[in-house]
Amino acid sequence: MPELRKDPVIGRWVIISTERAERPNDFKIQLVERAKNNFCPFCPGHEASTPPEVLAYRPGPANPNGPNWQLRVVPNKFPALIIEGDLDREGHGLYDKMNGVGAHEVIIETRDHSKSLSDLTVGEVEALLWACHDRIIDLRRDSRFRYVLVFKNHGESAGASLEHSHTQLIALPIIPRRVQSELDGAAKHYEFKERCIYCDIIAQEKRESERVVYENDEMLVIAPWAPRRPFETWILPKKHISHFEDAQNGIYPAFADALLTILKKLNALVGDPPYNFTIHSSPLQKPNLPHFHWHLELTPTLTKIAGFESGSGFYINPMSPEKAAAFLRNAQIT
Amino acid sequence: MPELRKDPVIGRWVIISTERAERPNDFKIQLVERAKNNFCPFCPGHEASTPPEVLAYRPGPANPNGPNWQLRVVPNKFPALIIEGDLDREGHGLYDKMNGVGAHEVIIETRDHSKSLSDLTVGEVEALLWACHDRIIDLRRDSRFRYVLVFKNHGESAGASLEHSHTQLIALPIIPRRVQSELDGAAKHYEFKERCIYCDIIAQEKRESERVVYENDEMLVIAPWAPRRPFETWILPKKHISHFEDAQNGIYPAFADALLTILKKLNALVGDPPYNFTIHSSPLQKPNLPHFHWHLELTPTLTKIAGFESGSGFYINPMSPEKAAAFLRNAQIT
Repeated sequence: MPELRKDPVIGRWVIISTERAERPNDFKIQLVERAKNNFCPFCPGHEASTPPEVLAYRPGPANPNGPNWQLRVVPNKFPALIIEGDLDREGHGLYDKMNGVGAHEVIIETRDHSKSLSDLTVGEVEALLWACHDRIIDLRRDSRFRYVLVFKNHGESAGASLEHSHTQLIALPIIPRRVQSELDGAAKHYEFKERCIYCDIIAQEKRESERVVYENDEMLVIAPWAPRRPFETWILPKKHISHFEDAQNGIYPAFADALLTILKKLNALVGDPPYNFTIHSSPLQKPNLPHFHWHLELTPTLTKIAGFESGSGFYINPMSPEKAAAFLRNAQIT
Repeated sequence: MPELRKDPVIGRWVIISTERAERPNDFKIQLVERAKNNFCPFCPGHEASTPPEVLAYRPGPANPNGPNWQLRVVPNKFPALIIEGDLDREGHGLYDKMNGVGAHEVIIETRDHSKSLSDLTVGEVEALLWACHDRIIDLRRDSRFRYVLVFKNHGESAGASLEHSHTQLIALPIIPRRVQSELDGAAKHYEFKERCIYCDIIAQEKRESERVVYENDEMLVIAPWAPRRPFETWILPKKHISHFEDAQNGIYPAFADALLTILKKLNALVGDPPYNFTIHSSPLQKPNLPHFHWHLELTPTLTKIAGFESGSGFYINPMSPEKAAAFLRNAQIT
């Protein structure tokens, strides 16, 4: 019997239609492939092919835009938003608009064109997290911005247009709708219970354990109760922290370990699938929030995305989170 | 300069990033292709390959599951929901679930395997609309159901798993989240203004005309103010009607004409692109609503769908609706 399940934060119902897929290799997916010999603007030696860097980590002496970097952050050459200008918010009859002011940056995670994020060391992934941290701290000084969206598209079918491994961030004068729904849902729960709903989720998941994929001292990885997609996973800090950029002791190494572990487990199960992740955090200009809890949401692209799902907000998922969590828990990684 | 625009009903902001794409053929899309010689369960003579029909239109004598049909509605052989059973709504700690009770049906639009919806006559498309109407009228007598979602996936990359042209409907015990957001947004506007927000949109669009794609006596077709995708279009009845199944005089022929015209214009511009449409209507068990206005939302799949968009609710669209509307208005069809 299929089941309808409701996300406890935003109230979205999904169908868990378990009769459709039973095992990871029931999904016909397009694995991520690498082209050969194309010129790559993100490779060492090609620094002049990107806009000048806004941040870089170098082992040796500072040498902006020189080739001796380990990680590099550059403005997107084809930005969706432009950094200069006023918002000029205005009405147009019924409608609202403002200038597309914002920052759109690319974090080049590694020098090595042949590596995916899942091939990096824990230390290298930790450096990626610190780069996100450092850019958010810098961008939040700009009072035009309300939110920094950190996301990664891995693989062409997940929207990646360059294959050299990178993460993106967009600083926005608005709060993305999905994050706003979570903030609203979490605030409603807090009003009623005076508890953070994500802390409640963590407590229940640890108690029941069947949707837990992995944990370390600081982080819990779960297959969420009402996932949209097979193998959707969330990574949450176990202790309440509202902002990702609030880097408390030891959180980034533990987060890097959890993220790497999940990506390697996913690879062990289904090859090298396309995926997306986004970090959901509290708005930049807000103080610590008692009701919101930052986390990362990872969705592999294992099923065709039927557009009716984004048109209706109604998702059909052929794999239960309990089954997905068991597969991921049992996947052996080296 | 890119622009941020807000959807007036649900409050979602999108980036209109016009520097990225200027013309319809800037999009590298996978056109819809037809396989050869595969067995098709939807073709005439193969009626026994589907579950028994729940509705059919036949020119001659009634002959259930016989081959002389023009349009046929059958239960989905691999349904996402199951028709028998109680909802058994229950809690599970923080979480909510219920049995996956519902109906999942397929409307086979034509006998001819080689035809797309856009190849049909106005009369044949009108028959599709009447079939949706007739099924909704039947399904709404079942008090377990709150909503019937009508949608179409055209082309493999838009999620279609069988190529013989068909539309689907799912009867649900819940209201899809996106539709609920529209109901909520429209109710808020009505509370403040005592006017339907979609009627207000229609009035403004007719006055400004630059986002109008097409109109006939009963229907208006627009590129919406804050579209998620290039060439996203909405088809709305000009007069206020809250429920699609409230088939007032002349509305279905006019709706069929509008839908066919848009599909043909899209084909003239970009070949035969994959697309999805969904009908957004009022909940089944509600009387006529003064604040909600049924409509169809059509989204061609011309850009790669980056998963971060559904993960964040934040969309980047490389084409303004004014430009999309001008291209569609000027597209010549035969």
